[in-house]
Amino acid sequence: MTGDPAVAACTVMTPDDFRTQGKALIDWVADYLETIEQRRVTSTVQPGEVRAQLPEHPPAAPEPFADVLADMDRVIAPGLTHWQHPSFFAFFPGNSSYASILGELASAGLGVQGMSWVTSPACTEVETLMMDWMIELLGLPERFHSRSSSGGGVIHGSASEATLTSILAARWRATGGAINRLGDTTKLVAYATSQAHSSIEKGLRIAGIGTDQLRIVPHDEQFAMRPDAFAELVAADVAAGLTPFWVCCSRGTTSSLAFDPTPEIAPIAHEHGMWVHVDAAMSGIAALVPELRWVNDGLDHADSYCTNPHKWMGVVFDCDLFYTADRTALLGALSILPEYLRSQAAETGAAIDYRDWQIPLGRRFRALKLWFTIRTGGAIEAQEMIRRHVDATRVLAELVAADDRFEALAPHPLNLLCLALRTGDEATDALIERANATGRVLFTRTVLDGRSALRFSIGGRTTEERHVRDGWALLQQLV
Amino acid sequence: MTGDPAVAACTVMTPDDFRTQGKALIDWVADYLETIEQRRVTSTVQPGEVRAQLPEHPPAAPEPFADVLADMDRVIAPGLTHWQHPSFFAFFPGNSSYASILGELASAGLGVQGMSWVTSPACTEVETLMMDWMIELLGLPERFHSRSSSGGGVIHGSASEATLTSILAARWRATGGAINRLGDTTKLVAYATSQAHSSIEKGLRIAGIGTDQLRIVPHDEQFAMRPDAFAELVAADVAAGLTPFWVCCSRGTTSSLAFDPTPEIAPIAHEHGMWVHVDAAMSGIAALVPELRWVNDGLDHADSYCTNPHKWMGVVFDCDLFYTADRTALLGALSILPEYLRSQAAETGAAIDYRDWQIPLGRRFRALKLWFTIRTGGAIEAQEMIRRHVDATRVLAELVAADDRFEALAPHPLNLLCLALRTGDEATDALIERANATGRVLFTRTVLDGRSALRFSIGGRTTEERHVRDGWALLQQLV
Repeated sequence: MTGDPAVAACTVMTPDDFRTQGKALIDWVADYLETIEQRRVTSTVQPGEVRAQLPEHPPAAPEPFADVLADMDRVIAPGLTHWQHPSFFAFFPGNSSYASILGELASAGLGVQGMSWVTSPACTEVETLMMDWMIELLGLPERFHSRSSSGGGVIHGSASEATLTSILAARWRATGGAINRLGDTTKLVAYATSQAHSSIEKGLRIAGIGTDQLRIVPHDEQFAMRPDAFAELVAADVAAGLTPFWVCCSRGTTSSLAFDPTPEIAPIAHEHGMWVHVDAAMSGIAALVPELRWVNDGLDHADSYCTNPHKWMGVVFDCDLFYTADRTALLGALSILPEYLRSQAAETGAAIDYRDWQIPLGRRFRALKLWFTIRTGGAIEAQEMIRRHVDATRVLAELVAADDRFEALAPHPLNLLCLALRTGDEATDALIERANATGRVLFTRTVLDGRSALRFSIGGRTTEERHVRDGWALLQQLV
Repeated sequence: MTGDPAVAACTVMTPDDFRTQGKALIDWVADYLETIEQRRVTSTVQPGEVRAQLPEHPPAAPEPFADVLADMDRVIAPGLTHWQHPSFFAFFPGNSSYASILGELASAGLGVQGMSWVTSPACTEVETLMMDWMIELLGLPERFHSRSSSGGGVIHGSASEATLTSILAARWRATGGAINRLGDTTKLVAYATSQAHSSIEKGLRIAGIGTDQLRIVPHDEQFAMRPDAFAELVAADVAAGLTPFWVCCSRGTTSSLAFDPTPEIAPIAHEHGMWVHVDAAMSGIAALVPELRWVNDGLDHADSYCTNPHKWMGVVFDCDLFYTADRTALLGALSILPEYLRSQAAETGAAIDYRDWQIPLGRRFRALKLWFTIRTGGAIEAQEMIRRHVDATRVLAELVAADDRFEALAPHPLNLLCLALRTGDEATDALIERANATGRVLFTRTVLDGRSALRFSIGGRTTEERHVRDGWALLQQLV
């Protein structure tokens, strides 16, 4: 980079530029979201094509923001997979409400750090309040309430971090805190089904619990953990002198939205002093709707729990709610207090320092986007949306049942239907590829007990029944 | 929460509301930043006071966004520590350029996921390009280049995550990958000085390396690691049958900006097959200025490196650059590939899947804020800012030297001066408290070899020499 700073200083973005260009960008975002349905869901770029359209070296002099915005149209938008597209049926939804986008803008504009209460009191206190509001909105147990229990809640970036944090708290408790000094994890054993999210294996690995110490608990024909099989594995490990320390009950697995029976798993786990983590990253939010509160059945027995407003509630990523009933174990695992981070407020116990509730030290004011969303009606909007998606999934299931060529491979109580062609895996895989190649939809593939499945995940903020019907019609046409 | 969805649906935020309210928020942010100097740096709230000003329960019906914005003025802003205030001399800077705020808005507006190349190609490719641009702007070694080396770079949320990732890659390499199956870390030993950041101890703990396996390497009178002491510790551990696996060279420690001598440490470490991580979270960015490139001396020997544009370059948090020279170890440690995440692009090696370069799975389009900042002149602006801060620190050091009551406790080659009163720790501690109580400045305290120190950290985007002089005059007056 070259360029004379004296000249450059006149041309970098001024406060007035920010006002003008910020408003232009607000319109750009609104235009993008309002016209997104006219786009292909996926990009047609090949690896390297986006980069090839941009300069290989940084600019020598400041460029007008209008040029950047033009490149958003020319290079960026055509190079995206459009997660906000109503015909995005892949993975899980990653919705962003208008209000939450503004919450993210406000957070960036303030530019404060919430690592400790003292580094920005409002950042911490609004977050605690939001975690407690969500307990009410989701009907979660009081044992997670920040004020009235020995537990509490915190916003993490993702369910992966929630899983890892829960493993670390469990590891601390299982070793009586000794793990902080002596890194011996060789006796610890964890449990989950093959259907649990990849972040569980990854979290265990990070924590020094290798895959040899992860027991894959057999699942039933609905892809849910079998309590009898779990009990047998635990008993065998105990007999072998090992220490079962952590089990993950997935409430809505990634592949098929299977629900592990927490009410039956938890008592077995607690008999052996294990930590019960409930991963409801996508499905837990469905509890916003009273008739769907069953998604969180058994939480009264959970040591920790997570669900993501950034999936099905419309709060733009990243916003994962992590709750624990055992604040002591969490802090035991993650608290570190060097001189430069001490504060009176924290030492008297009057304030929460969220840096001790998470992996990293630094943290953004993420609670704002949840606060903005809830206050402007986003929770009510999400209720309506969730009902709409569950209804559309029911309609889809009926359509599928009426077509002999297809079958559903798993239960579909919420917003995900796993489909396959009866003619076999190759045909199913080919259908997914053909459908995605049209650019009109996006599906992801999974494998359920050895069979290829097309995941039809219905969760977009603007996804309506007609999009689901169109997606289905496309599949029928492409078989 | 109650409320009739049919009624509510009419009142939640519409696209037109978003345009109107978004522009109001842009102005709110601009006003906040333009008038920030009129505020106290810190809030006067006591623990619980922010929450007490907000409803204890979520609203039953949507509220107008104007009410939310009013609460930003009434409750939020008065409850903050203002990190963007020019007299914020605490911790390290956490600057946000106007362009980077817009980058965060654009990222939220697009709402895409960058976990894999295929989940949004532009998200990955712009990030890779930005990592390579930063190599050029900072003069980093080619061994970190994503295209021309066996290493590469990725944006993490924070240096804490970079440190942890580096530990995990080192742990994988030291165990020949066995750690992924067998979680035995009991032979591994890590090294850092007492001056290294708290995230090092925390990262080791998370990885199952307890503090008994962390050697605190003695430092010299400048608070930098002593290579002779390091060599002795390593030799003793090897003799004891242990495996030295990771050393952290801090380039700019948190307490005093001490610089561990990477050029002398690295050869000793490599003789024993160790991983050398260089943590230059704050100071590394100074290399934007050619005459300050010494901050990264020795990087040719580093296995990994991190520095944070969100500290001293003005890219709003979170934006940590993590580079490694050994992509294989990184991927070995962090790659997990379930069926629902497979893609052709990744399996042919044509594309990068950044989920395998980081702790969590999900990831925002963080590269946009770096791209926006660099293109609109932010790197040039940061050069000017860094020079201004280094000059102001030199002026401050002269003023301090001329006042017999004070002394500097550590070298101050960049933008941090650690001061103490000659009359002792109590006097220094009291001075920090009195100064901070005025609300006109904010300093943090540290302890350097047992002595209390006032950290005068000069790094705000709008901090000029006059703010530093005012801060110093205040200290002189309050002694």
